[in-house]
Amino acid sequence: MTRNELIGNILKKKSFLCVGLDSDISKIPSFLHGTDDPVFEFNKGIIDATADFAVAYKPNIAFYESRGASGWVTLEKTVDYIKGNYPDIFTIADAKRGDIGNTSKLYARAFFENMDFDAITVAPYMGKDSVAPFLEYPGKWVILLALTSNKGADDFQYHPDEENSLYKLVFRKSQSWANEENMMYVVGATRADMLSDIRKAVPDYFLLIPGIGAQGGSLDDVVNYGMNSKCGLLINSTRGIIFADNTRDYAKSAREKAHELQSSMEARLVKQGLL
Amino acid sequence: MTRNELIGNILKKKSFLCVGLDSDISKIPSFLHGTDDPVFEFNKGIIDATADFAVAYKPNIAFYESRGASGWVTLEKTVDYIKGNYPDIFTIADAKRGDIGNTSKLYARAFFENMDFDAITVAPYMGKDSVAPFLEYPGKWVILLALTSNKGADDFQYHPDEENSLYKLVFRKSQSWANEENMMYVVGATRADMLSDIRKAVPDYFLLIPGIGAQGGSLDDVVNYGMNSKCGLLINSTRGIIFADNTRDYAKSAREKAHELQSSMEARLVKQGLL
Repeated sequence: MTRNELIGNILKKKSFLCVGLDSDISKIPSFLHGTDDPVFEFNKGIIDATADFAVAYKPNIAFYESRGASGWVTLEKTVDYIKGNYPDIFTIADAKRGDIGNTSKLYARAFFENMDFDAITVAPYMGKDSVAPFLEYPGKWVILLALTSNKGADDFQYHPDEENSLYKLVFRKSQSWANEENMMYVVGATRADMLSDIRKAVPDYFLLIPGIGAQGGSLDDVVNYGMNSKCGLLINSTRGIIFADNTRDYAKSAREKAHELQSSMEARLVKQGLL
Repeated sequence: MTRNELIGNILKKKSFLCVGLDSDISKIPSFLHGTDDPVFEFNKGIIDATADFAVAYKPNIAFYESRGASGWVTLEKTVDYIKGNYPDIFTIADAKRGDIGNTSKLYARAFFENMDFDAITVAPYMGKDSVAPFLEYPGKWVILLALTSNKGADDFQYHPDEENSLYKLVFRKSQSWANEENMMYVVGATRADMLSDIRKAVPDYFLLIPGIGAQGGSLDDVVNYGMNSKCGLLINSTRGIIFADNTRDYAKSAREKAHELQSSMEARLVKQGLL
């Protein structure tokens, strides 16, 4: 999916919501456990219920990989289902991969060829040649970890100091490897106060913001400091939507929660003059 | 596997060789392609031929993941085969995973519970809580990326300068999360000149050294600067062993190459006074 297509979908749906499909089998409603593939059934329910209000879905691969080969089949079916039924949805493999060049190339094959994800999250530690193979696919995206939302972000991402921090170097260097048509950045929403600085560093890039809701970020802060003239934001919500309710009404509840977030987002798009 | 058991196996086998099972389906001998699971047959051949001379096997997960669910089955069968037939072999999932705590926990489940790997490689970018879940398994190991052997290592791992570099901070911080009984480090052999400094930072820890052979490192340099009084080294070789020959004799050639390396290692263990 191109950047213009993504922006078009955001304006059409009046939403920049990404729904995390971290579909932990131990947390899905029990009535689904009788089906052949409970996690896939769960995902289908969530997707059908929320697709009106979301522009992106983001399965975190750990939730599938932890179930071995059958989890992998569920993941493949989930991407196929989204692509087959909702072709305007942007799909993100939250995989945080990254290895030497010939190995990253195989991860790229896994997520961009065997599965038809639009984007993959990549960890920057190993540098340019670990990221480059993912950039060779037209219309596909790297979403590079910059500043993450977890406590451990403090350990290395601010090294050696705020001014010269590693995450700022990640922004600086990576812009020579890619551009705003094929790269985005993960920026933890719990650091919304730093978003205006980050916007100066990467004015035109999309930011994928995890951590709204359960991880503590605020939608208002993120929009105030992070939105640019093309929106430039994908805001992820996971637990607040997919595990809002674990009864037979889980999909209905997910739809309500997604609709609530979409409404707030629509209001902010209007206020910022994008709609 | 405990540290003492690993050291015992090194002394018994007179080897600190790790064989990389980066079993690219496009590079394995063509006669195997008629079998039900060519990559598993290939791995079995390599393992049976080289287990006398190796103390560890290290499949890089990308080579399996790039084949989808069936690749995952091959990986599971490969670990089971090693554990079932060569229980004194140390098995490393070269996965370079790392995510927020509840997610890393699921990766730990994938590699330490669903599969019985002894160790997993982990990327440090997200800090302590992304690493900690892997450390909760007694007898299991984290092998943390410190200084990698690829060109891209220069991009971030030396930030901001040699003296205060990120990779040194990784050594410093991570030693408060774990100890030499459950953590090792990946140190690229192409930087053998820096190994003596690294040994000062982590005197008692095992180092996993990739990049001997195809990636350009020298065994002599690594031993001279990296060996400690308990050996403290696992040296990986992949392409020079597993793809030494792509005829029906591939396993025999792999055995010869592994034996050559083991002989050099035995000589160095003697010279250093460990045997």
